[in-house]
Amino acid sequence: MAKKALILAKNGKIEIRNKFGVTKDNLASIYTPGVAEVVKEIMKHPAKVYDYTWKKRAVAIISDGSAILGLGNQGPEAALPVMEAKAVLFKELANIDAVPIVLRTQDPDEIVQIIKNISPTFGGINIEDIAAPSCFLIKEQLKKELDIPVFHDDQYGTAIVVLAGLINACKVVNKKLEKSKIIISGAGAAGIATAKMLHKYGCRNIILFDSLGPLYRGRSQQMNFAKMKIAQKTNPFKFNGSIQEALSGADIFIGLSRGGLLKTPDIEKMTPRSIVFALANPTPEIMPRDAQKAGAAIIATGRSDFSNQINNALVFPGIFKGALETNTVLITDDIKQKISLAIAGIIKRPNRSNIIPGVLNKKVVKTIVNVFKK
Amino acid sequence: MAKKALILAKNGKIEIRNKFGVTKDNLASIYTPGVAEVVKEIMKHPAKVYDYTWKKRAVAIISDGSAILGLGNQGPEAALPVMEAKAVLFKELANIDAVPIVLRTQDPDEIVQIIKNISPTFGGINIEDIAAPSCFLIKEQLKKELDIPVFHDDQYGTAIVVLAGLINACKVVNKKLEKSKIIISGAGAAGIATAKMLHKYGCRNIILFDSLGPLYRGRSQQMNFAKMKIAQKTNPFKFNGSIQEALSGADIFIGLSRGGLLKTPDIEKMTPRSIVFALANPTPEIMPRDAQKAGAAIIATGRSDFSNQINNALVFPGIFKGALETNTVLITDDIKQKISLAIAGIIKRPNRSNIIPGVLNKKVVKTIVNVFKK
Repeated sequence: MAKKALILAKNGKIEIRNKFGVTKDNLASIYTPGVAEVVKEIMKHPAKVYDYTWKKRAVAIISDGSAILGLGNQGPEAALPVMEAKAVLFKELANIDAVPIVLRTQDPDEIVQIIKNISPTFGGINIEDIAAPSCFLIKEQLKKELDIPVFHDDQYGTAIVVLAGLINACKVVNKKLEKSKIIISGAGAAGIATAKMLHKYGCRNIILFDSLGPLYRGRSQQMNFAKMKIAQKTNPFKFNGSIQEALSGADIFIGLSRGGLLKTPDIEKMTPRSIVFALANPTPEIMPRDAQKAGAAIIATGRSDFSNQINNALVFPGIFKGALETNTVLITDDIKQKISLAIAGIIKRPNRSNIIPGVLNKKVVKTIVNVFKK
Repeated sequence: MAKKALILAKNGKIEIRNKFGVTKDNLASIYTPGVAEVVKEIMKHPAKVYDYTWKKRAVAIISDGSAILGLGNQGPEAALPVMEAKAVLFKELANIDAVPIVLRTQDPDEIVQIIKNISPTFGGINIEDIAAPSCFLIKEQLKKELDIPVFHDDQYGTAIVVLAGLINACKVVNKKLEKSKIIISGAGAAGIATAKMLHKYGCRNIILFDSLGPLYRGRSQQMNFAKMKIAQKTNPFKFNGSIQEALSGADIFIGLSRGGLLKTPDIEKMTPRSIVFALANPTPEIMPRDAQKAGAAIIATGRSDFSNQINNALVFPGIFKGALETNTVLITDDIKQKISLAIAGIIKRPNRSNIIPGVLNKKVVKTIVNVFKK
């Protein structure tokens, strides 16, 4: 697979394509002087930029390379192939023309300024692989400044799919998600967004862990504004032990942290019919085989070579297609939750090895777009 | 043609295309986890971003919409269809993947910062339809800051083609370009770059006009640093009359200003076998028919519906293809002059109605690329 990945990436995975050939006959209509007529139309009616350019189909995928996959802060050049891969999926799954743009700067204010200034070109902005807590600042600021939708896939792409998967997993094991004890490992972009979505869904017994330990109200070390905010809504009993201790009596584990974190005995402490989402890539927090041995009833990973793949590619193509088709600028928490429910609903009879549709399932994008149309 | 231009522009003229389809089999190699192998290669050898992404084929076409065609400062949205049109030509003529990017800001320092920060994504930067004198500042600053080639088409795209056309025109009328008296109307991006190129070629008797009158050393009104600089090299006798007076005894007129500027009697004042390049779009400074009546031997315009079309589309695709293929970062004055000579050389036997190859002539890009390879 490693070799195949390099072969497919050779000279890049995407290109620009003209929608028609250039001939002596149409040259003057494509370029000067004809294009002046198009310019004049947009001068008269600025909103026609959506009719006479690619804007309605064009999304910028923007990264500063500060949190590339599980590989950390590796800068813009190393981020570019990942952005191209996302562009491939945008096109394949939603016929959206996504342009990878990687940035030399990692300053959140400067990133906001850049995105704001290039935004007239695009119908939407997908920010990607930008480390927490910068990503939260950037996202919030852009929501205020832009007149087009902005989505940070690493936050809500993941969170929406996790919630969808949990809804079906709880059906299978006959537990009530809102009443479940949930342990989340990882308090970065995905961990915090997942906790927020679960809280909105009604879950109250959630404990988030970062590398230092559990988040709780009043913790002072290794905090940031985003962690402080989520600490207000989670860990109601101000638990302050190890993740192994926290797993005792837990119904659900969600790993958004690092491979090999847990061992079989850790999972054995969970309640019967436990749900384990070990989503670190490429090595999960615990391998499915080991989690199964420990009695986990439902296991999901981020990988395509196991069943129940939790992949944010399920979400971002449909989110942008839906937002662009319906001129939706703000992707609210309510829309996000409805999307989780709609994705879960695609699986009519969920079972242990089938809680979530596959990335290439054509129903997914249509289902998400319908959420926007309702 | 106006209607055809709108039809062709409907929903945009370009799209992103995947170089291969996405299947269950290749998904894990395109996206996670496989793409991590590509990231790691670039982490080890940053220059491999040129091998494993679109960077070597990708050019950003960037405009702030401050000088769109002949339509003035109309902002980013109105500029977008023009940038798309250029992207179409980039692809058709040179197989370069050009991405239109229009900017909300017109502040030169901010534009430099944005371009610098998005530059890791691209192999080259084409700045476009940015008003003088900002365009000069931006271009000079970017030359210092970027590790990829940058080219301002409105300056040197036009200037290179004008010089190529003049070289052949002078052959036809048997005049020596270096000895000719040359009047340039327009002291914006194209006018100043054309004057600079002609000066480097050896021309000394050049007078540039802006809307106020001729530029000369010591003129104080309506000047900027770029006009002051070119005023040092041109107008040796500090002529300070009207353009009509200046045309008396002139061999060459180059119009890069506004339609309908000149009348038949103005051209009649020029020397016999005069050369008139009336390049304002869509209405030339004088219509070819009127210039011909006045005795002009060779007439060129910017339009495709007359012979001798001076169109910067002749230059930009080949310039970037040549620079990208040979890893050339700095497009020197020497390279530019050689390109003019090479383009002129494509026409083996120039005559009155054939001094310059057509935009769709396949030899042009090859010829320009060969200049870079020598």
